[in-house]
Amino acid sequence: MNLPNTVNIVEVGARDGLQNESPVSTQAKIRLIDLLSDTGLTHIEAGSFVSPKWVPQMADSLDVMKKITRRHNVIYSALTPNVQGFEKALEAGATQVAIFTSSSEGFCQHNINCSISDSLTRFEPVMELAAKHNIPVRGYLSCVADCPYDGPTKPEQVARVANLLMELGCYEVSLGDTIGTGTPIGIAKMLDAVQVKVPTDKLAVHFHDTWGQALANIYQALTMGINTIDSSVAGLGGCPYAHGASGNVATEDVLYLCQGLGIETGVDLELLAKAGWMISEELNRQPTSKVSLALKQR
Amino acid sequence: MNLPNTVNIVEVGARDGLQNESPVSTQAKIRLIDLLSDTGLTHIEAGSFVSPKWVPQMADSLDVMKKITRRHNVIYSALTPNVQGFEKALEAGATQVAIFTSSSEGFCQHNINCSISDSLTRFEPVMELAAKHNIPVRGYLSCVADCPYDGPTKPEQVARVANLLMELGCYEVSLGDTIGTGTPIGIAKMLDAVQVKVPTDKLAVHFHDTWGQALANIYQALTMGINTIDSSVAGLGGCPYAHGASGNVATEDVLYLCQGLGIETGVDLELLAKAGWMISEELNRQPTSKVSLALKQR
Repeated sequence: MNLPNTVNIVEVGARDGLQNESPVSTQAKIRLIDLLSDTGLTHIEAGSFVSPKWVPQMADSLDVMKKITRRHNVIYSALTPNVQGFEKALEAGATQVAIFTSSSEGFCQHNINCSISDSLTRFEPVMELAAKHNIPVRGYLSCVADCPYDGPTKPEQVARVANLLMELGCYEVSLGDTIGTGTPIGIAKMLDAVQVKVPTDKLAVHFHDTWGQALANIYQALTMGINTIDSSVAGLGGCPYAHGASGNVATEDVLYLCQGLGIETGVDLELLAKAGWMISEELNRQPTSKVSLALKQR
Repeated sequence: MNLPNTVNIVEVGARDGLQNESPVSTQAKIRLIDLLSDTGLTHIEAGSFVSPKWVPQMADSLDVMKKITRRHNVIYSALTPNVQGFEKALEAGATQVAIFTSSSEGFCQHNINCSISDSLTRFEPVMELAAKHNIPVRGYLSCVADCPYDGPTKPEQVARVANLLMELGCYEVSLGDTIGTGTPIGIAKMLDAVQVKVPTDKLAVHFHDTWGQALANIYQALTMGINTIDSSVAGLGGCPYAHGASGNVATEDVLYLCQGLGIETGVDLELLAKAGWMISEELNRQPTSKVSLALKQR
């Protein structure tokens, strides 16, 4: 077992989370991000510059990112599908951007309407601009366990596309179990394959808790040396493939796991849970985080 | 890693679950147990013969257990705190009984008002009667990770009391993380200590999901060869120490994990989830099982 001493949390609630929730006000997003900035997090995904036609929940990302109160040691990143998006992200003051593709052809076709190969080609101009502006680019890779269209994804296929994202110039690849169907042994096989192609310290895991397996899978990943975890405050972000079901793993639950394993995250669990309650009240629902619910009742 | 090929599920929803929920009718309990009997489960905890003054939700256990439709290959067990309880369990046709103590003195005092040592002495007449009637006795051991009164429980203390339960004549000890605060490394240390004293095939884990860690902990236990898991359909059973928070890990989530790990349980997940929806409707709430919610929305 090869547990890391420290783990970096990439907080995706304000983007990946809120883009799958009912719309909330610009003010609420700003308040959420400002609260998150005070928790000790060092990377907050703050917005997305995709077409508001596709993701209306993120239409105000420019406004949000201009009005947040920034801490100098925190990365505020944004999703940028193309050059126009990248330029808006620059205008918004994003200190890092993210691109995305899929490890399954079916999902790529349905999600971004092109092949995996074409998706990577399309991102080349974004990578060039990012290099010019000295902006690090993170690569999201979806469907690393299963695809809603193609079924199980082969570990070698995940490794292949992860490697292509690194070759394209990404500094890190975030491995997404987009539909949350993975279980620990399958996740271990996938990571085994990817670790042959991409160094472990360039890998993050981005697991969804739709089938309740996220923490078991994260624990598996930790034992394999993975030390960057994407998670979402209050478990923001339902599952677009199973409405009413859970989406992103809750940051609170990940922090509690890390605490128990003696792994440093630098994040204050109680403050993070408070940020989660603020946005949950805005959404008029409870956090999906069991840790958050237990903390509230204590 | 030493994953078992098969896992025995001990379904505790109708007892440990329902005793921590709002009361439901006798008819609903019978219907629940009958539905559970059709899922492939081989052990269903069906009632409790403690004083109805302490656990009013279980006051009708005799009636319930007399009216269920039994399958010959299914164990229908009951909790029996004393000789009177054991006699009622016999009358109810229990094919197995369970006794209980704590691995922490504080919880033992608060829960059953005596020391651990005295609790074991008190169970001696039950053990004698059980032996006479050829009824196997299971031992529940609570607070194997932490105690709400004493704090962390020492692994050696858990091992010591687990061994005492075996010496008393229990055929199996169920190790309960009663407040759900355990995380995988702590659970591994506890199991390591217990496995020195009690053979692995005499051990079960009974983990609560109050802090969202149950599946990660169960995965840890599986890798150490544990092949009996207590769980509760629909996650029945809130946490008496944190109202509004989760209690028992949901059987649906455990089944999904086992399926993914290639471990046979013999239980039909879809039928079990249906039983969960029946009792959840009766309780007028949703299952706490993420798998159940995802299945419903699919």
